[in-house]
Amino acid sequence: MPEEPSPPGTVRPGGRTARTRAAALRAAEDALIETGFDALDLADIARRADIGKTTVYRRWGTPAALVADLLLDMAEQSLPRTETGTLDGDLRANARLVHKTLTDPRSGALFKAVVTAAAGHPATATALHRFYATRITEWAPCVEQATARGEVPEGTDPAEVIRAVSAPLYYRFLVSGDPLDAASAERAAAAAAAAARAGAYVTRVG
Amino acid sequence: MPEEPSPPGTVRPGGRTARTRAAALRAAEDALIETGFDALDLADIARRADIGKTTVYRRWGTPAALVADLLLDMAEQSLPRTETGTLDGDLRANARLVHKTLTDPRSGALFKAVVTAAAGHPATATALHRFYATRITEWAPCVEQATARGEVPEGTDPAEVIRAVSAPLYYRFLVSGDPLDAASAERAAAAAAAAARAGAYVTRVG
Repeated sequence: MPEEPSPPGTVRPGGRTARTRAAALRAAEDALIETGFDALDLADIARRADIGKTTVYRRWGTPAALVADLLLDMAEQSLPRTETGTLDGDLRANARLVHKTLTDPRSGALFKAVVTAAAGHPATATALHRFYATRITEWAPCVEQATARGEVPEGTDPAEVIRAVSAPLYYRFLVSGDPLDAASAERAAAAAAAAARAGAYVTRVG
Repeated sequence: MPEEPSPPGTVRPGGRTARTRAAALRAAEDALIETGFDALDLADIARRADIGKTTVYRRWGTPAALVADLLLDMAEQSLPRTETGTLDGDLRANARLVHKTLTDPRSGALFKAVVTAAAGHPATATALHRFYATRITEWAPCVEQATARGEVPEGTDPAEVIRAVSAPLYYRFLVSGDPLDAASAERAAAAAAAAARAGAYVTRVG
């Protein structure tokens, strides 16, 4: 029996459209890592991905839109959080993951490129913000559990605590250029936990 | 009596070379704010500054070098810190200053543009890092004074505390896109002070 025809532009997961997208996103990732956002070129992406130039232009239109789609894919594929049983342990695991992402030559270059792209393109910025919102939602329960265990005060904002772990690492990476050593990751986690225990992230009054 | 001739390429402060530099840097600032780093063009800078194109090309050579010189000038002209007499007060003043800088439409656009430029150009990155090092050196004494007053433990790293105030604000601004409201600045200051009091930034063992 022949397969049901798909509506134009949509194919079930794993179909040709999905494979084309996967190839284009992989090529975009490679190009961003090698040459950064400014040099991103849709014709080059089509060559790298071995797909038609017309397909790439029709589907994404601009390098910024392609990067936005890559960020959507990265959000969908991001890893589940670590659970250690203590707030200190969970935040340390989070800090180590962020540290590894930013110091790995490939993923570090990729994140620098997408942040740069977002600075100049609102649609890419929206996709970047969604990516981080997804990561924060994934890790927020570690703060909720810490609140339930009485490690931090009632009303502590989980998202603020998770952001506080990442912020000093991204600040070094993008802004101040101070070394992103292992100690900076441990310190980011310890400082966020200490500030949370002191009630600095209480945003709701119980 | 005639003026002493200056060595080529150098003129005493306030002389013609200084005026040319000031005009070019002001034009670069305006162009970065209006169109971002990617669109920066030395011929356009020369037109905006009403100086010779050859002068601009000979002196700076590339947009990235011009932005690096702008950052050097920004570091030289940055404001002295506020002294309130308490760590909480001093860090709150610092957070409000950073918050104002990032939320002001002109200076916010300028900082986004220079961080973007630094992501792709090592010499601009070096100048950006020097700019923040200057700011941190200016504000570090507020932590030294807090240590002397016994507000934070001996061995607290002043630079780490100052970076901790800025980091959450830059993270929202460049990365996560969460609102940069006044509360986020107050929270950044309070969290850095709380973590410092808890000893999270002790890096030297007395």
